[in-house]
Amino acid sequence: MTFNKLDFFFMAQAIRLAKKGLGRCNPNPIVGAVIVAEDKIIATGFHQQFGGPHAEVIAINNCKDKSLLKKSTLYVTLEPCAHEGKTPPCLDLILEHNIKRVVIASQDPNPKVNGVSIRTLIEKGVEVDVGLMEDQAINLNKGFFKRILNNIPRVTSKIAVSSDGKTALNNFQSKWISNEFSRSNVQRLRRFSDGILTSYKTINSDNPRLTVRDVDSSKQPYRFIIDASFQSNSDAYIFKQERVVIFYSKEVANKPNLKAICIPVSCADGVLNFTEIMKHIASMEVNNLLVEAGPGLNGLLLQHRMIDELIIYQSQSILGGNAREMFNHPVITAMESRNQLKLVDYRFFGDDIRFIYEVDYVD
Amino acid sequence: MTFNKLDFFFMAQAIRLAKKGLGRCNPNPIVGAVIVAEDKIIATGFHQQFGGPHAEVIAINNCKDKSLLKKSTLYVTLEPCAHEGKTPPCLDLILEHNIKRVVIASQDPNPKVNGVSIRTLIEKGVEVDVGLMEDQAINLNKGFFKRILNNIPRVTSKIAVSSDGKTALNNFQSKWISNEFSRSNVQRLRRFSDGILTSYKTINSDNPRLTVRDVDSSKQPYRFIIDASFQSNSDAYIFKQERVVIFYSKEVANKPNLKAICIPVSCADGVLNFTEIMKHIASMEVNNLLVEAGPGLNGLLLQHRMIDELIIYQSQSILGGNAREMFNHPVITAMESRNQLKLVDYRFFGDDIRFIYEVDYVD
Repeated sequence: MTFNKLDFFFMAQAIRLAKKGLGRCNPNPIVGAVIVAEDKIIATGFHQQFGGPHAEVIAINNCKDKSLLKKSTLYVTLEPCAHEGKTPPCLDLILEHNIKRVVIASQDPNPKVNGVSIRTLIEKGVEVDVGLMEDQAINLNKGFFKRILNNIPRVTSKIAVSSDGKTALNNFQSKWISNEFSRSNVQRLRRFSDGILTSYKTINSDNPRLTVRDVDSSKQPYRFIIDASFQSNSDAYIFKQERVVIFYSKEVANKPNLKAICIPVSCADGVLNFTEIMKHIASMEVNNLLVEAGPGLNGLLLQHRMIDELIIYQSQSILGGNAREMFNHPVITAMESRNQLKLVDYRFFGDDIRFIYEVDYVD
Repeated sequence: MTFNKLDFFFMAQAIRLAKKGLGRCNPNPIVGAVIVAEDKIIATGFHQQFGGPHAEVIAINNCKDKSLLKKSTLYVTLEPCAHEGKTPPCLDLILEHNIKRVVIASQDPNPKVNGVSIRTLIEKGVEVDVGLMEDQAINLNKGFFKRILNNIPRVTSKIAVSSDGKTALNNFQSKWISNEFSRSNVQRLRRFSDGILTSYKTINSDNPRLTVRDVDSSKQPYRFIIDASFQSNSDAYIFKQERVVIFYSKEVANKPNLKAICIPVSCADGVLNFTEIMKHIASMEVNNLLVEAGPGLNGLLLQHRMIDELIIYQSQSILGGNAREMFNHPVITAMESRNQLKLVDYRFFGDDIRFIYEVDYVD
């Protein structure tokens, strides 16, 4: 199937609209929709918040002259839903208004949809074109696609580092390697994440709150703590909060009296099973997991090939000898075994430079 | 004294001309000169190579109508010389041609000059203005100023590093962290340096030649090796070359039979006296010293506050746990004690990023 210039133009609008929902729809994907009749946009919509109406529904409702719909094209970034969820299925509404053509950027990987709507629309005689600007549409919802397709979240690790690649002094002092602009940007990362992963070591050395400012406690991202044998200080700030989950070793019998949810995980050689942990996190509908931890946990996640994206705030200073590194693992003995990174973006925050990398694991 | 727009314009030309001599005049400074009569440039010159005529002489000789000189202004980036060197003093030639006004960007810090020419010109009735675009003029010859004023060379350390701040695997493998574009740029760094400093550890692990390609052996930069007790492999490539100097401990009695020049240095706790070493290097008229070494030597130089500039080629890869760092020293216990860097330049070489930093040592 071929798409013309106008198709690209209208789908680009839909993608731009989708982005307006960023950070507000999780664990739902963000979606944008544009309705076009006679080469003119007659209505638009985007998914505005979790539980609210879908993009297509908003666009159809926004259309003042519904009689135009039967000769219109709906451009939508994700396959319309076919299942009754928090809202009635979009599929029914499209069919009810006899929309002539539906152009879909990406098929919904959710097993409840996954082509069902596309097939139904075709069977009902709607003209359907799929795959226009598919990569961009998938990029809007990397975490959602990762979780639905692989049953694990998309993992982003955020690390503040000196120019010589150090994350803390040997005595664990790390306040503040990065500047206030970088730290304020980290607030944005947290806001767009469904969960934050850390370890008991970070809890004990930094006693972080790991909260998003100006967001109430019931809407904070989950805080997940790797703590095989309950070594976190029980009076840490984090344990005064809601939505805190500890992963601990199945072999540990005595759970401390904590407000946090404690999840037992199998354990080998003192290291918890990260696959189990990630599956559990995904089962809690976490699409995007942000790691804020030290070289131990970051190293293990890297060794288990679980970090998808690295966000590094590099400051212009030298912490020198004996300071703590970024990753304790993997330990490699040949240059060919090193993992490569792909620079996606770099930007200055004051004197700090933020690098966004995708991790390209060596085969 | 005030300078007008035209003064700035003509001095900027002189600075631009000076740069044409880059890498060809060492240990002399690079200098540019512009002669202006009735607001028009009538002649220009720059110092083209060590031992050749100075910028002012070339400019005066380039002037076709010498009768214009008596009503002209000479713009020169460095105070003209007053002493008989490899060429007759420029001062005499300026006076001989009755040049009306001389504008000098920076006074020559060389004790043989250092204001002598300026005073003489004034005494002889020449109009003299000093200090126009002084910072830019001094920046042309940072190494020269550093050596003349402090009796030590300007030290630049070049380090190739992974994204996680690692310079080699634990087994010393480091080929190749940076890509071929970065490595070719290192050739340029060597070409503009009068000496290269390394340690026996680098000689033994990498067996580097540390040469500038397409330059004959008598014009190669000096190669200085820190090797307190002669642990370098005597059959290393470097020892087949000219202009190689080893600094070793005074306490070591038996010098091996090597073509290299061996200089005894005082030593405490197994560490050679770096002040002595740097003074010796300066006495060999080395303005710009390039360090190509590992975390041991780089750490010691940093601890002794001897690195002026860091040139870091950062590749997009992760060497991971247990790999070798950038600096083994200094070891600090409080974040306030960390040395700051000032980013002067950054540039991509393929996927590598080259950062040029000035080191801003903490007080």
